[in-house]
Amino acid sequence: MRDVARTAGVHPGTVSRVLNPATRPLVSPRTADRVERAARDLGYSLNPIASGLKTRRTFSVGVVIPDLTNPLFPPIIRGMEEVLDRAGYTTLVASTDGDPERERQRLRTLTARQVDGFLVATAERGRASFAELVSAGMAVVLVNRTVEHGGVFAVVPDDRKGLALAVAHLVELGHRRIAHLAGPQRLSTGRLRYRGFLEAMDDHGLAVDRRDVVHADAFTEAAGALAARRLLRLRSRPTAIVAANDLLALGVYTALQSTGLRCPDDVSVIGFNGMPFTDRFSPPLSTILIPHAQIGARAAELLLERIDDPHATPQTLMFEPSLLARASTAPPRA
Amino acid sequence: MRDVARTAGVHPGTVSRVLNPATRPLVSPRTADRVERAARDLGYSLNPIASGLKTRRTFSVGVVIPDLTNPLFPPIIRGMEEVLDRAGYTTLVASTDGDPERERQRLRTLTARQVDGFLVATAERGRASFAELVSAGMAVVLVNRTVEHGGVFAVVPDDRKGLALAVAHLVELGHRRIAHLAGPQRLSTGRLRYRGFLEAMDDHGLAVDRRDVVHADAFTEAAGALAARRLLRLRSRPTAIVAANDLLALGVYTALQSTGLRCPDDVSVIGFNGMPFTDRFSPPLSTILIPHAQIGARAAELLLERIDDPHATPQTLMFEPSLLARASTAPPRA
Repeated sequence: MRDVARTAGVHPGTVSRVLNPATRPLVSPRTADRVERAARDLGYSLNPIASGLKTRRTFSVGVVIPDLTNPLFPPIIRGMEEVLDRAGYTTLVASTDGDPERERQRLRTLTARQVDGFLVATAERGRASFAELVSAGMAVVLVNRTVEHGGVFAVVPDDRKGLALAVAHLVELGHRRIAHLAGPQRLSTGRLRYRGFLEAMDDHGLAVDRRDVVHADAFTEAAGALAARRLLRLRSRPTAIVAANDLLALGVYTALQSTGLRCPDDVSVIGFNGMPFTDRFSPPLSTILIPHAQIGARAAELLLERIDDPHATPQTLMFEPSLLARASTAPPRA
Repeated sequence: MRDVARTAGVHPGTVSRVLNPATRPLVSPRTADRVERAARDLGYSLNPIASGLKTRRTFSVGVVIPDLTNPLFPPIIRGMEEVLDRAGYTTLVASTDGDPERERQRLRTLTARQVDGFLVATAERGRASFAELVSAGMAVVLVNRTVEHGGVFAVVPDDRKGLALAVAHLVELGHRRIAHLAGPQRLSTGRLRYRGFLEAMDDHGLAVDRRDVVHADAFTEAAGALAARRLLRLRSRPTAIVAANDLLALGVYTALQSTGLRCPDDVSVIGFNGMPFTDRFSPPLSTILIPHAQIGARAAELLLERIDDPHATPQTLMFEPSLLARASTAPPRA
């Protein structure tokens, strides 16, 4: 580094700032060019691991998600990457499959690799696996899901609002007997959407029969199909189902198929998330759209702020969802 | 570390081996338990960055893919993670969007972070962006796509075989006038599937009209729709289209919709990859299935072998694809 500094006629600290993407904007473009040329000529590149040991930054962020194969997450991660990349950070993505043991292990591995912070999409309402990290001073921002006890940074969709939109849409189409296929209640997304459903039904003066609310064990198509069958077996069937996310809605499709019922002719179905490809499903799925890339980008920005300022005040950013009315919802049969 | 060794009554080297997931199997379970207990009691954990500086291993692998939002990649990455995880490696995933500049930058960032090897799904036939890495002795395994010049490790589907299956399926249904929506020819997947198409048509004694082969600029739905319109505008239309991948096939669906044609009534469509959710499309997409998780897992295993033995002989592993006949292919109208 000293040779590069000498060749470029600058202080070694300037070389370090230029070669670190996060601090490069601090140096004038002309000087930065000179340093880069000198570094290239001398075949020198910054060793971020050695420099990490010194500055105590590794310029990496751990992203912990339940399942990469849920199409909701790739566009969120892309939004994160855009922001982190520009700031010179590498993104390390790890999936947990919703398994607490696997999550602990992932958090441990990433902590051992000294990431500068975490973007966590696996939070459970009660069990704060990341609480240790937070109390150890680690920068953590929750994404999509949040917790109840506060004191955290989070970027989430407005789940209640989303359910209100879904119920209003069905009521407008003429449905009165509306069922809810709820997600796991240990997750904020499952809990708040369930709450939102009950509130919205109440707002419209509609009663909710106990049997018209079923709970899926996981946010997966298989769990959705299993729970949906319970609804479809009812002697008097609801005319519409609000599923707590798109994969559960897909499970309703599966259950409908296996019982010979048709969507939307026999039952209207609406999902939540507006995940990619839902417009291609048969029928195209009505759903509640959340801004995936924006959620990822804002979460990453919040994390960078928190990394730079350990005393930043916890904040929750809630994005307003919108209705995507497609062919899976229609007026009930007369 | 010395304190842990003393407490557990072992040599410090044993502590290091136990706390490193890659070497832990070398130590007897009983000793390992004792060391772990001692480490926990003393609040000691291995610093993999410091230990990386010493052993020159960071136990991380860079995964470079074109686009995380292409549903083909998540299940491949999950296959990689399974294997890498078990071996104590962290997976760092980066997307390039098929942009060479972005790819160079990603490879640079990951190299600077001293990953132990790369799994690369962005290879172009001619332009070997990773060639520098290989000649610098870096362990690299190509995934899904390969290059022509040899000397590389690669895990790919048998592209020609896949196209042969697709053409045979359509011929069996009674199609004679079969078109090909080819992918970018700078990619092995685009090139070999195109070659496979010509060979298969020839094998069945069918002529290929020049106009019945169109090329998409990218493996995306938008590029597929654009190219498909050229086929659908022909005065005499082909009765079936073999798309070089599922996203291109989705583009054909889009083009069909906008021209008021129906699939499979007017045109049969078959894709390639068997990516998730193609069974949910309207109509469910016939496609050529490749074993996603297995491709990822074998690529990761090959990479670990190569990391351990820099003198390993380059090898290409080719997985046999299979036909998934669904509702998008049917006999041509009489």
